[in-house]
Amino acid sequence: MFSPDETKGIAELSRAVREQRPLVHCVTNYVTVNDCANALLAVGAAPVMADDSDEVADIAGLAQAVVLNIGTLNRRTLASMVMAGQRVSAIGRPVVLDPVGAGASRLRTDAAWTLLREARVSVVRGNLSEIKALTGGHASTRGVDAAEEDVRTAGPQDAIKAATVLARQTGAAVAITGATDVVTDGRAAHTVAVHNGHPMLARITGSGCMLSAMVGAFCAAAPERIPDAVVAALGMMGVAGEQAAARAEREQAGTGSFRVWLMDALSQLDTAALAGGIRLERLA
Amino acid sequence: MFSPDETKGIAELSRAVREQRPLVHCVTNYVTVNDCANALLAVGAAPVMADDSDEVADIAGLAQAVVLNIGTLNRRTLASMVMAGQRVSAIGRPVVLDPVGAGASRLRTDAAWTLLREARVSVVRGNLSEIKALTGGHASTRGVDAAEEDVRTAGPQDAIKAATVLARQTGAAVAITGATDVVTDGRAAHTVAVHNGHPMLARITGSGCMLSAMVGAFCAAAPERIPDAVVAALGMMGVAGEQAAARAEREQAGTGSFRVWLMDALSQLDTAALAGGIRLERLA
Amino acid sequence: MFSPDETKGIAELSRAVREQRPLVHCVTNYVTVNDCANALLAVGAAPVMADDSDEVADIAGLAQAVVLNIGTLNRRTLASMVMAGQRVSAIGRPVVLDPVGAGASRLRTDAAWTLLREARVSVVRGNLSEIKALTGGHASTRGVDAAEEDVRTAGPQDAIKAATVLARQTGAAVAITGATDVVTDGRAAHTVAVHNGHPMLARITGSGCMLSAMVGAFCAAAPERIPDAVVAALGMMGVAGEQAAARAEREQAGTGSFRVWLMDALSQLDTAALAGGIRLERLA
Repeated sequence: MFSPDETKGIAELSRAVREQRPLVHCVTNYVTVNDCANALLAVGAAPVMADDSDEVADIAGLAQAVVLNIGTLNRRTLASMVMAGQRVSAIGRPVVLDPVGAGASRLRTDAAWTLLREARVSVVRGNLSEIKALTGGHASTRGVDAAEEDVRTAGPQDAIKAATVLARQTGAAVAITGATDVVTDGRAAHTVAVHNGHPMLARITGSGCMLSAMVGAFCAAAPERIPDAVVAALGMMGVAGEQAAARAEREQAGTGSFRVWLMDALSQLDTAALAGGIRLERLA
Repeated sequence: MFSPDETKGIAELSRAVREQRPLVHCVTNYVTVNDCANALLAVGAAPVMADDSDEVADIAGLAQAVVLNIGTLNRRTLASMVMAGQRVSAIGRPVVLDPVGAGASRLRTDAAWTLLREARVSVVRGNLSEIKALTGGHASTRGVDAAEEDVRTAGPQDAIKAATVLARQTGAAVAITGATDVVTDGRAAHTVAVHNGHPMLARITGSGCMLSAMVGAFCAAAPERIPDAVVAALGMMGVAGEQAAARAEREQAGTGSFRVWLMDALSQLDTAALAGGIRLERLA
Repeated sequence: MFSPDETKGIAELSRAVREQRPLVHCVTNYVTVNDCANALLAVGAAPVMADDSDEVADIAGLAQAVVLNIGTLNRRTLASMVMAGQRVSAIGRPVVLDPVGAGASRLRTDAAWTLLREARVSVVRGNLSEIKALTGGHASTRGVDAAEEDVRTAGPQDAIKAATVLARQTGAAVAITGATDVVTDGRAAHTVAVHNGHPMLARITGSGCMLSAMVGAFCAAAPERIPDAVVAALGMMGVAGEQAAARAEREQAGTGSFRVWLMDALSQLDTAALAGGIRLERLA
């Protein structure tokens, strides 16, 4: 496990986000874009959304990180994602890729790989089915959710394996979120499990997209500590999800209130509470 | 009226949705798309949103139902709707059409008819003005809401008449929602009124779109009982709306809280509560 | 300061919106479009969103006001904004421009000026950085938020100056929102400060966009009193923000709940409460 000091060092990245207030440019889907903007504001970052080829390079040039999310992709926005990714790669800032629904259509799988080739992607964050689709080892999917078999029968070992393969193929850190989250840069010694979160996060739309946006914010605030930044973002979403779920259980509330309280928790979680709540495990 | 057993049989379709967790592909507007995704998750279905011609056939092919919503239509997405509708029609799965704002522009009225011709639409759900615009009997509208005259002076007879005409013209089941909801497959003996709902549902955006998405989920779970599935979805939204409005009245809350509690109710309503709350009437 | 009667006369415009229920056509961004629709419904107006060149003139022709928001602009929607703006200008109804992110990209600054030239814009509402970018006096920006220097060091005098310059250049009333809101039609005697609002409004996405949509609703209800209508809309958002923030403080809630309660307040604020809460100052 992580020592208290190590855990605290991870949690303190949330303070860095609030202090630096990084501008995070998202080229993202229209389903959860509002959630992503509000999540970024909640953790202390500043969102900017823009997806047209006539401006994405300008906007990406202002940003401390770019998040590319293929949730409702089309040819116009894919070209914009390439441009934004290239621009921010060129100036050495982090690029996060969320390959939403990779495996569900040829377009999405191909688009994810196009972005991995054309930009210098720092982090890929997806569910197990999406990451498996990218490594070519598996093609089953269920729209934008992990395939049932990946949810029910896959153990952490499957996630570790898939994440490691993709990290080695791409040079990016890879985060697979699910019952247990796994983060790796491809080296066994740098593979971490984040034991936070709650099943209610899967009962609202946007929890994955918001998390990818937050990963962008944390990487922007600590570009020299990418794997730690990813772990911190995952821990923050997980702890916030636990807090919101505990309240929903206490007040016998449904998914509407849970979603509101998740945003409350993201906006109110301080570094000490985060350090006290995150449960990290080194998997090496 | 419906016998308790008949009512229970309708309400039990909500359990079928939760058990089967059907994948519902929405090609829909960007105003309420997040609400639609959350409503689908709340009732136990799995949403997937995709609107590009390069992938809609792939995605529709994975889905148990497709929902076509013309709320913020353009030429690109209309072509995608045709493709998605054709694909899912070809494999014999339900297609739901929400003709948002039909009558408000030539584009919308024409697009709705294009979709009715090109796909095998199972259900059309709209307000009275939209359905009248499609039957050609009436052209007044007020943007995406029912025209004032349709709200104030129209009785259930107007809705029954318009729904019956469109059902006979198209072969689809038709649902007109308003003060009283009417569902018909065009035969008098199969015409049902759903006496649920609350005026607050008209004070938030998305209640109609969410309902159409839910109709898709219910039809996916019971494709051999389309009219019953439509009635069940309308009843569920109506009862959830009543619960949320009762709470808003009790707590003197406004439309923001109502919207959250509506989602809570959709996610928490069980089959027994639904059976106890829906008020159905056979209109024959 | 304003006399109690003058303040009451401003506040009563909120009643005019609820009584007339104007149809407001927004050609707007996909980040906050749902918030805009719900805010319009909350204050008693009727929203319609449409952005395709095949229908915007039809839809704008039905509307009592058009709101053009360049938050996620592209070439297709810019052409539609021009068409909608021209149509509604031609029939003498108000056009509101929200130049989101002007200064952050060439595309946005140019697009804002294109709209100012091609339509008869009645009101421009933005933050200080955006308005300065349009007057050419300043180019710094931070994505879609006001630049830090504009937030920290600028006094009301900077806003008054920038708003006056743009109002004289364009003939539109100009509203700059920030710590203190300023509204002017370019004449010193018609320059008003609105001392309402709360910093939490900047911690959620959409407060500016919702406000611009509300400005459209108020102008639609009082097209012969445009500057008063703008002041009333700003006052209403400010007072609603104060109420929601007070509740958030009382209940120690975060930004998720604040956002819900802001919508509650918009939907529940009556004319008397508004008149009692708005703090207006004539700046001449």
